[in-house]
Amino acid sequence: MSSQAASSLQAEVDRLRLQLESLQAKDGSEPITIGNYLLARLEQLQVTKMFGVPGDFNLGFLDLVEDHPTIDWVGNCNELNAAYAADGYARVKEHSIGVVLTTFGVGELSAINGIAGAFSEMVPVLNLVGVPSTTQQKTKPMLHHTLGDGRFDAYSKAAENFSISQSILSDKNTAAAEIDRVLTDCITRARPVYLTLPTNLVFEKISSERLKIPLSRLPPPNDPDVEAFVLDEIAKLVEDAKDDVVILVDACAIRHDARQEVNELITKTGYPAVSETYERYGGIYVGSISRPDIKEKVESAKLILSVGCLKSDFNTGNFTYSIPPSRTVEFHSDHTKVQFAAFKGIGMKELLPLLTARLEPTSEIARKIPVPSFTAVVPAETDDVITQAWFWPKMGTFFKPKDVVIAETGTSSFGILDVPLPDKSVFVSQILWGSIGWTVGSTLGAAFAARDIGLNRTILFVQELSVMLRHDLKPIIFVLNNSGYTIERFLHGKERKYNDISNWNWTALLSVLGDAEGTRSKSYTVKTKDELSALLDTASFAQAGKIQLVEVMMPKHDAPRALIQQAELSGKTNAYVAI
Amino acid sequence: MSSQAASSLQAEVDRLRLQLESLQAKDGSEPITIGNYLLARLEQLQVTKMFGVPGDFNLGFLDLVEDHPTIDWVGNCNELNAAYAADGYARVKEHSIGVVLTTFGVGELSAINGIAGAFSEMVPVLNLVGVPSTTQQKTKPMLHHTLGDGRFDAYSKAAENFSISQSILSDKNTAAAEIDRVLTDCITRARPVYLTLPTNLVFEKISSERLKIPLSRLPPPNDPDVEAFVLDEIAKLVEDAKDDVVILVDACAIRHDARQEVNELITKTGYPAVSETYERYGGIYVGSISRPDIKEKVESAKLILSVGCLKSDFNTGNFTYSIPPSRTVEFHSDHTKVQFAAFKGIGMKELLPLLTARLEPTSEIARKIPVPSFTAVVPAETDDVITQAWFWPKMGTFFKPKDVVIAETGTSSFGILDVPLPDKSVFVSQILWGSIGWTVGSTLGAAFAARDIGLNRTILFVQELSVMLRHDLKPIIFVLNNSGYTIERFLHGKERKYNDISNWNWTALLSVLGDAEGTRSKSYTVKTKDELSALLDTASFAQAGKIQLVEVMMPKHDAPRALIQQAELSGKTNAYVAI
Repeated sequence: MSSQAASSLQAEVDRLRLQLESLQAKDGSEPITIGNYLLARLEQLQVTKMFGVPGDFNLGFLDLVEDHPTIDWVGNCNELNAAYAADGYARVKEHSIGVVLTTFGVGELSAINGIAGAFSEMVPVLNLVGVPSTTQQKTKPMLHHTLGDGRFDAYSKAAENFSISQSILSDKNTAAAEIDRVLTDCITRARPVYLTLPTNLVFEKISSERLKIPLSRLPPPNDPDVEAFVLDEIAKLVEDAKDDVVILVDACAIRHDARQEVNELITKTGYPAVSETYERYGGIYVGSISRPDIKEKVESAKLILSVGCLKSDFNTGNFTYSIPPSRTVEFHSDHTKVQFAAFKGIGMKELLPLLTARLEPTSEIARKIPVPSFTAVVPAETDDVITQAWFWPKMGTFFKPKDVVIAETGTSSFGILDVPLPDKSVFVSQILWGSIGWTVGSTLGAAFAARDIGLNRTILFVQELSVMLRHDLKPIIFVLNNSGYTIERFLHGKERKYNDISNWNWTALLSVLGDAEGTRSKSYTVKTKDELSALLDTASFAQAGKIQLVEVMMPKHDAPRALIQQAELSGKTNAYVAI
Repeated sequence: MSSQAASSLQAEVDRLRLQLESLQAKDGSEPITIGNYLLARLEQLQVTKMFGVPGDFNLGFLDLVEDHPTIDWVGNCNELNAAYAADGYARVKEHSIGVVLTTFGVGELSAINGIAGAFSEMVPVLNLVGVPSTTQQKTKPMLHHTLGDGRFDAYSKAAENFSISQSILSDKNTAAAEIDRVLTDCITRARPVYLTLPTNLVFEKISSERLKIPLSRLPPPNDPDVEAFVLDEIAKLVEDAKDDVVILVDACAIRHDARQEVNELITKTGYPAVSETYERYGGIYVGSISRPDIKEKVESAKLILSVGCLKSDFNTGNFTYSIPPSRTVEFHSDHTKVQFAAFKGIGMKELLPLLTARLEPTSEIARKIPVPSFTAVVPAETDDVITQAWFWPKMGTFFKPKDVVIAETGTSSFGILDVPLPDKSVFVSQILWGSIGWTVGSTLGAAFAARDIGLNRTILFVQELSVMLRHDLKPIIFVLNNSGYTIERFLHGKERKYNDISNWNWTALLSVLGDAEGTRSKSYTVKTKDELSALLDTASFAQAGKIQLVEVMMPKHDAPRALIQQAELSGKTNAYVAI
C-alpha cells in the first residue's frame, strides 16, 4: 500500500471515529467552552491569525481570541479588507485556512464580496459571524443590525450562495460536531464555509473529547479497481502520444493539497510543464493571448495532462482554449476525466503518485522533448518613459527566490504574465473573480502567512496599509499611477471621465496612516526608467527592512500586451450594440 | 373631494394607463434606447446624481450617463461607499430616490451592506447592476466575476433578501414596463429595488410613449367608508383623552412623503409633538434612555398619536418603550391601527389631513398642554478636557437653520440625542442598521442632495473625502478621536485591544487625498474646550467655504449619557454567559 493510500485510510478512520463520537456524546473529563473548542480546532489547522472587525455580537468571543496563546487577532479597517486578508492568508499558507470574524448583518454583508471571491477561486476561508443569542433569534425583536421585519435568517440565506457548507449554531449538544463538519468541508473542498456563533453559546461548556481526533483533510480513498483501470487508460494515451505530452497545472492543484504530487509528476517523468495562474514552470498558457511559442507547444501536443485546471475567460483568452477533450486527461480533487469519460471518486492526490511511478521508467525519452525557454528580456527603449513593455521584464530582474508577488486585477495581473518568477516564489492574483481592490487586504494576509512559513519579501503591485504598519509587516508596494482604470479603458470608454480617478498624494499616505515620524516606512515616486532602475539596484531598498511604497508614473494609455489582446477578445462578446 | 384624495385618484389613473400601455405595446413615434428610457424615468424622479464604480459590464450604460444633461456620474472609491452615498442622497432629497450603479458580482456584492441598510431604514434606493449579455446569461460561460460554477443567478438571489422588488431585464419588449414596476415600488414602498441591465440591451431601442405618463407615487386611495369609520374612532379617543394627547413622529413619516401632512397635524391641532430620529420638535423619545421629562410626558399621556414609527432596540432604549397599544393610534403608509384594531389600506397621507381638519376646532385647548422645553445647556466644567457632556451642547450652539447634521453610529448618534436642532435643519443617522462607516459615503450623498434643494452646511460627526474634494463639496467633518471603538467598549471589552484602532494623522489626510496645495481644504486638531470654542466662533470656519476637518481629542472612556444607559440595557440581553 502506498503511503498516500495509507494516509487516506487513516483519514477515513478519523472521520468514522468522529461520527461515533457524535452519536455516543461522551462527556469528557475536561470540559471546554464552545468558543475555545473552535479556537482549538483552528490551532490544529495551523491558523495563527484571525482577521475581522469587532462588533457587539462578537466581542465576547474576541476575549477568547485575544487570550489565545497562538492565534492573534488582526483588527482590519473594514470587513471587506478582512475577508480579502483571510483569502490572501489561505492562498499563501497551504495546509491551513483563512478566518474572518464579523458581526451580524452589517459586518458579514460588508465581507460578502471577499467571501464570494474565495468561493470563485477555491480558497478555504472560514466565515465566522457573531450573532444574537439563540433566544433573540427565536423571539426576533427589532434589534439594531436587523432588517426591521423579523427576518433574522436573511444574512445566512445570502451567505448560502457563496459558501460550500453552513452551520447556524443553536444547540450546545451539537455545536462541536457542527464546527467539525464545516471545518472539514472547508479543508477538503477548498472553499468558504459559514458558521454563526450566538452570544450565549460562546462560553457554554462542552466535552473536549473530540479534539483528540484530528479533522480529516483527505478525500475518501479511491476505489482501487477503478483507479487501476484509469491508470491503464492514461498510460495507453501517454504511450500513443509518444514524446508529445505536456503537463498543464492550475491553482486547484495547490488548493487541494497536491503540490508535492504534482511536483513529483513533473520532475520524475520529465514531461514539459506549463503552469497557468499560480506557480510557473515553462510559462503560462492563456489561450490565444499566450506567448506564441507556448500557445503552439500546448495546442499542438498530442496529449495534455491537465492538473487542477479551472477555465475562465481571463485565463483562457476569452475561451480561446484550443485543447480538445480527445487529447486531454483532467485531474481533479474528486474525479478524473480521460478524454470524454469521467471517473467519479478518483481524486488526484492518490492517483498522481501512481501515475508518476508508472511513467518514471520512460523519463529519459520525455526529458528530450524541447521546452520553449521562458525568459523576459528588458527591451532597450530609447526614451525615459516607464512603459508597460519595459516595466514588467525589469521587475522580473528584481524578484528573488521565495518572494511573494501579488498582482492587482488590471494592468498588473496581465503584465506579469510575461515574466518568469524565481524558484519557490509564490504568485498570487485573483484572475477569475477579478475584484479590483482585492490586493489591498490580500497582501496583508499573504504577508502574515509568508512570515509564518518563512518566505522572503512580499511585493505588491497596485491600503490595509495602516494595519500593516501596526503589525510591522514590510511589504514593497508598487502603485502604478496611470491616471485611472486602464483595464476598463481598454474594455470600454478609453477617454471617458468615469475611468478617471482622483490623483492622491501617494507618497504621503503611509505618514498619514500611522507612521508620522517616517521610522517604519519609506515612500518613493519614480518618473523615469533610470530612476526606477536606480531604486531597484539600491541594496537598502531591496532588503525590504521597512514598509516601502513606490509610485511609478506610467502613460495613461499604455497597457501590457496580454491585456490589449484580452480586451480585444472581451470587446467582441461584451459589445454594447448601438442599433 | 380633498386635494389629497384627488391626487390619489390621479395616481390611480396613471397606474391604469401604464397597465394599458403595457398590454397595447404601442410603437411610439420616437424610439429611445432602454438605457435612456431608464435615465428619463430617473430624471422625472428628480435624480441628479448617480453613485457607483465603473466595471466592465456597466461601461456602455455609463456612456449614456456621462452624456446625460441633468444626471451626473459620481465615481466613488468603492461600491459600499457608493451605496451609502445613494442612501444619504435619498434621505435628504425627499421626493427623489438614490441610485447606485455597480458591475456584476464583485461590484454589487461590495455594495450589499449599504443596500441592506437602506432596506432596514426604509430608504428608497435603486440598486442598478450592469450584467453580462442575455446570451451569456443563457450559455453561462466561465466569465470573470462569476463563481466558476455557472450560477449566474447567485447575486440576484442574494439581493432578493435586501430589496422590496427585483427585475432581471431579459427582453426588450417588457423592459420599459419592468423598469416602471421596480421604480414605482421604490418610490411608493420607500425601500431598495434591484434592477439588472444586460450589456446587449442598453442600446436597444424601444417606444418612448410610456414616458408621457408619470410614475405614481401615491398609494391607492383609502376606502371612504372605512376611512370615515377610523376617523370617528380616533376623534372619540382624542375627546376621551381630553388635554392629554401627544404626537410621536418617526422617520417613516418622511419616507412616505407625509412631512407636510404631519406638520399640519402638529401646527394646526396644537398638540405636543415628540420626534424620534429625524426631525425634532419637543425632543426625542427613546424609551428608558429618554430624558426624564420627555419620558414622563410620553408615557403618562392618555393618548399617543404615533406617526410612521419603527421600533428598534436603539431607538426604544432596548425595548423599554412603555406605551401600551390601548393608548396608541398608529399611522402608517398603508394601514392604521387604532388601539388593537388594524385597518388595512387606510394610509396616513390621506387620513392625516382629514384628522387635522377634525381636530383643528379644539386647538385652543390643545395649545394649553404644557410641553417640556427642549434645551441643552453647555455645562460649566472647570477643566480643559473636551468631554462628551460638554461637547454636544456646545455643538448645539454652532448649528444653524437648514444645516444637515450627520451622526455616525456610536458616540455621535447617542450624543446628539440631547441637543435640540434648529428649524428646518435635517438630522440623518442610521439608528436601526447601525453600520459603522456609513456616514463616510452617506455624507457625500447628503451633501449633493443638500446642494440640490438649497440647504445650508453639511456637518458630519466622525473618508469618500477624496470624492468630496473632486466635486467641490464643503462639509465640515468632526472626527471624534477617542482612541478606538468607544461604543463597543461600553458594550463589551472596555480595555480590550480589539477595540483600539491605529492613530491616523487625520489633519494630513485631505492633503493626501487630492488637495496637496491646501487650497480646497483645511484641517484642525483641537485638544481643549477653549481651542474648540475659539474655532467654532471663527467666522471663516462657520461659513464653511471649503471642506474642513476637525479632529477633536476626547477621553477614551468618556461617552454620552444616552450611550451609557443603552449599553447597560444591551448588556443584559446580550450577555456572554460564563458558566
